[in-house]
Amino acid sequence: MQPVDTELLRAINRYRVLDAIRRFAPLSRADICKQTGLGRTTVTDIITALSEEGVVGNAPEGSARGRGRPVEKLQINPDAAFVIGALVAVHQLSIVVTNLRADPLASVNIPIRTTRHPAETVAYMLEDGIKAAVDQANLNLSQIAGVGVGIPGFIDAAHGISHWSPALGAEPIGFAEMLQKQMGTPVVIENDANMAALAERWFGHGQDTDNFILVTIEGGIGMGLFIHGDLFSGQHGMAAEFGHMKMDLNGPLCRCGQHGCLEAYAGYYAIVREARKVIDLPPTTDEVSIERTAHEVAKRARAGDARLLKIFRDAGETLGLGIANLINVIDPGKVIITGGGVRTADLIAPAVRQTVEAYSVKALRGKCEIVFHDWSDEVLARGAAALVLQGLYRNPWSRSTAIAVAV
Amino acid sequence: MQPVDTELLRAINRYRVLDAIRRFAPLSRADICKQTGLGRTTVTDIITALSEEGVVGNAPEGSARGRGRPVEKLQINPDAAFVIGALVAVHQLSIVVTNLRADPLASVNIPIRTTRHPAETVAYMLEDGIKAAVDQANLNLSQIAGVGVGIPGFIDAAHGISHWSPALGAEPIGFAEMLQKQMGTPVVIENDANMAALAERWFGHGQDTDNFILVTIEGGIGMGLFIHGDLFSGQHGMAAEFGHMKMDLNGPLCRCGQHGCLEAYAGYYAIVREARKVIDLPPTTDEVSIERTAHEVAKRARAGDARLLKIFRDAGETLGLGIANLINVIDPGKVIITGGGVRTADLIAPAVRQTVEAYSVKALRGKCEIVFHDWSDEVLARGAAALVLQGLYRNPWSRSTAIAVAV
Repeated sequence: MQPVDTELLRAINRYRVLDAIRRFAPLSRADICKQTGLGRTTVTDIITALSEEGVVGNAPEGSARGRGRPVEKLQINPDAAFVIGALVAVHQLSIVVTNLRADPLASVNIPIRTTRHPAETVAYMLEDGIKAAVDQANLNLSQIAGVGVGIPGFIDAAHGISHWSPALGAEPIGFAEMLQKQMGTPVVIENDANMAALAERWFGHGQDTDNFILVTIEGGIGMGLFIHGDLFSGQHGMAAEFGHMKMDLNGPLCRCGQHGCLEAYAGYYAIVREARKVIDLPPTTDEVSIERTAHEVAKRARAGDARLLKIFRDAGETLGLGIANLINVIDPGKVIITGGGVRTADLIAPAVRQTVEAYSVKALRGKCEIVFHDWSDEVLARGAAALVLQGLYRNPWSRSTAIAVAV
Repeated sequence: MQPVDTELLRAINRYRVLDAIRRFAPLSRADICKQTGLGRTTVTDIITALSEEGVVGNAPEGSARGRGRPVEKLQINPDAAFVIGALVAVHQLSIVVTNLRADPLASVNIPIRTTRHPAETVAYMLEDGIKAAVDQANLNLSQIAGVGVGIPGFIDAAHGISHWSPALGAEPIGFAEMLQKQMGTPVVIENDANMAALAERWFGHGQDTDNFILVTIEGGIGMGLFIHGDLFSGQHGMAAEFGHMKMDLNGPLCRCGQHGCLEAYAGYYAIVREARKVIDLPPTTDEVSIERTAHEVAKRARAGDARLLKIFRDAGETLGLGIANLINVIDPGKVIITGGGVRTADLIAPAVRQTVEAYSVKALRGKCEIVFHDWSDEVLARGAAALVLQGLYRNPWSRSTAIAVAV
């Protein structure tokens, strides 16, 4: 625990005021008091400071009704700072420039099979993409407060290290430092599923519940966990390897070398492996072709092939059983299922829901909402921007704070 | 989130000072500043207030070394308040009276098969036992700030309701209110495994890590979860039903009516069920006789019966696989295994450790310490006392605060 002193208190109060304005603007001072539970004097002091710093300003006036001058409404000054969000996927780099409200100002998508390149090459391409996006937004790099990067795999966010990643390779790499040195801008990295969870917390289905689990269906099965309103990354920063929950030790071989892992039933490669047993499919050589083929199998299932429909149903059942196990252990308010695999939600969702209902403990049955949420890589990149913004909002406002959030 | 204001800040600072003194006493004012990170003035103000209230006092003086007067060392005044901790098990009620340091002052154990009686009878017996324990400690009930009760089953701590309990029956019961009305003293209830986790946090292996999982082996398999230094009970207060993680849908029948739950492999009744296939055993009619028989099987296994040794090894393997799943998902700093079943640790621990090691994801292998910790019901009752003390320590000190922690 951090020591609690008056300086930290001020920072927390400031964060609360900013967070309320960010989420519910335009707000009057009275609205802010109500939202935060803080006293009038405290709120006024904070607003005064934030206005002087240019972070908060007056919202455009609505029509003045009734007598007297209209009540002043406040909003975040969206252009007080800018951040970059990026997603390193196996098939592309997605980059978005956002302002303080996480509005997307410009975006760049670079199709690149990251698996084919060493991490340094990926970092150079990311740097070039970021510079192009910053240009496109009519900004320059010195205006960028920080860069947040989502990466699939075992990512140690606290130390900025990718331990293992389908996009960056199997060796530990200090990717945050690598990119930060190239760019001269603070960089934070995070597991892509954690980042998706952060995006849901800021913009999506996680706004209304403090405890939720996010599950990503992609080549593998990922997970992000919010507990008491905070992202929980585990004691070693590597929580949420849901894809390697063992469903049956005699089950199919997983890419990790063990048998019966959840993703060996429900990841793209599992779908393709099973489909090959009943239909002819072109050879698949990498994550990208496996993903494409899995969606091709989905298309043919939708055309009415009962054998293929069963493959998706079976995958949905195993996924649902894994989610029931999670619900029994964690008791979340919500489970949000996202990632590219959600494009097959029509084929798997009924089985997922039925199995969750069947295998949750009785007292929790029907209590946890299951949401399928289809999101683009660009929205995920906004989640990466939120990663940086979270650091900015959480601390007393200054450019030096932005540096402090860097790894 | 609660609003952060100066009053709450004071309460938090006060809690931090108290917590430091409780854990590391005797401490000088300088030690307290170092432990808490708080400034000298803040600490002095808090200590002055706590001394006036009689909560903190001078520790007995050590030998004064060097010149000048000796530095004043502080400790919790242990007799500033008293609380009751109780454990409702299927075979007995355990009651302990403690002071502010959670020192046990008196204890009462009542052998009673709680399963045979309605919840009201259990509450009356608990009341009588508490009164006897308070007498034994030379106190009277008006000096008791609160009662904490641990109960196995689905316990909604926030609302004081037992939804389902092997000790209190299958119907929802407002047990906290029931006991509170009888006693006229604030009562909090909690799942027994959560309470064991709290006991580990205060007195045991959870003191040095903010993120840990506690697993209890009893008739069933329970779990308690500490995240960021706080007990996490889930969105609906019912997290941690680890015993019903499904290990194999074609597996043995669980008492919950489903197949392949972890406790259907590793609970007492699973051991007895498997042992019956190879040796003669007396009939078992209830939780108590099942537990006794399971320990009898353990004794015969230790005498060298290879078939029985294998039963424990298999149970240990399945438990280890379940724990590996937990580690992969939550990445705790430690897993603490406790409960009556730990008396068979010699038979199951090697299999548990090997299986955890084999099925943790590579990046987490060897990172999570597994501790087997044999604890008595009396120590667990101290955990229940800690449940009340936690509420007291967390709030500005007053008798009225004790009332505020009640359900």
